[in-house]
Amino acid sequence: MKKSIGAQTIVYPTPVFVVGTYDLEENPNVMTAAWGGICCSVPPCVSISLREATYTYHNILARKAFTISIPSERYVKEADYFGMASGKAVDKFSTTGLTPVKSEVVDAPYVNEFPFVLECKLLQSVEIGLHTQFIGEIKDIKVDEDIIKDDNPLIEKIKPLIFSMDNMSYYGVGKYVAKAFSIGKEIMK
Amino acid sequence: MKKSIGAQTIVYPTPVFVVGTYDLEENPNVMTAAWGGICCSVPPCVSISLREATYTYHNILARKAFTISIPSERYVKEADYFGMASGKAVDKFSTTGLTPVKSEVVDAPYVNEFPFVLECKLLQSVEIGLHTQFIGEIKDIKVDEDIIKDDNPLIEKIKPLIFSMDNMSYYGVGKYVAKAFSIGKEIMK
Repeated sequence: MKKSIGAQTIVYPTPVFVVGTYDLEENPNVMTAAWGGICCSVPPCVSISLREATYTYHNILARKAFTISIPSERYVKEADYFGMASGKAVDKFSTTGLTPVKSEVVDAPYVNEFPFVLECKLLQSVEIGLHTQFIGEIKDIKVDEDIIKDDNPLIEKIKPLIFSMDNMSYYGVGKYVAKAFSIGKEIMK
Repeated sequence: MKKSIGAQTIVYPTPVFVVGTYDLEENPNVMTAAWGGICCSVPPCVSISLREATYTYHNILARKAFTISIPSERYVKEADYFGMASGKAVDKFSTTGLTPVKSEVVDAPYVNEFPFVLECKLLQSVEIGLHTQFIGEIKDIKVDEDIIKDDNPLIEKIKPLIFSMDNMSYYGVGKYVAKAFSIGKEIMK
């Protein structure tokens, strides 16, 4: 039997995206965002939704670019902090000791210590409500060499975080379940 | 050292959303979509991106509503199948034996056997490229009673799937890592 729990912003899984931008004085900033995901294959695009109150919101509008750095489990403390502190008040790279790297393809910095990075050019802004959605065209992906095999990144080595809204907690990726576009064929026979 | 792997549609984690719609003859249909996520808090909204070639695309435009049913790990075969077969050709509920339930709040069906369901009214359509993004306002969430505690769903009981683009595989949710909006405070001190 199903029960109504009202209109809430819960889906599974929810990502932990660390969004990198420059402000008008060339200072690198990062913030953690959980509202987003891939939104188009051609061109390859990813979306993130931000409130106007964030520093990153204004940086993206000014610089027309952002990166998404995916933190590994071991950087959960820094990723959580990036979602609480504001770039208006502090230099989050200094306080964490992490390293900003200027993207060679878009006007935004990424986190060098995080293993998987999307470099995005702003394609569209969509006003929804409290959040504005920024659609970025993925211009390139940079990954740590030790987490790729035959040019494919490996989720089990990246160890990305999953955000759970229901208990406000982070989880890791679990065990392999099945091959996609494959196991379902058993039903097609 | 980071290496470029080109512009690809890979992020971690990527969801497995089973999108439910009615066609013009009131037939319930489902398809699996991996491009999407929460995109606004007020009003609460979720987005899914679909190609015009899908049956669901036209159903959403006609009925202005859709549901997202989150499959548990045990339904990985059905979820994978829903992403391969087309509702133009087959009745996917009949072939899997799963049960369509008409939402009481929006004009769309959901999968009764899946533990967590978002009921959405179409708010905006955004043309991006190959994919069109449908932004749905979440009107209610229905969850199985045995996976909630104090009206909160529990990720560990839902056992949602994670889609990994890099090796085209499904994974489960892993172990608890840390409390959100909490562990990062250690850096703020």
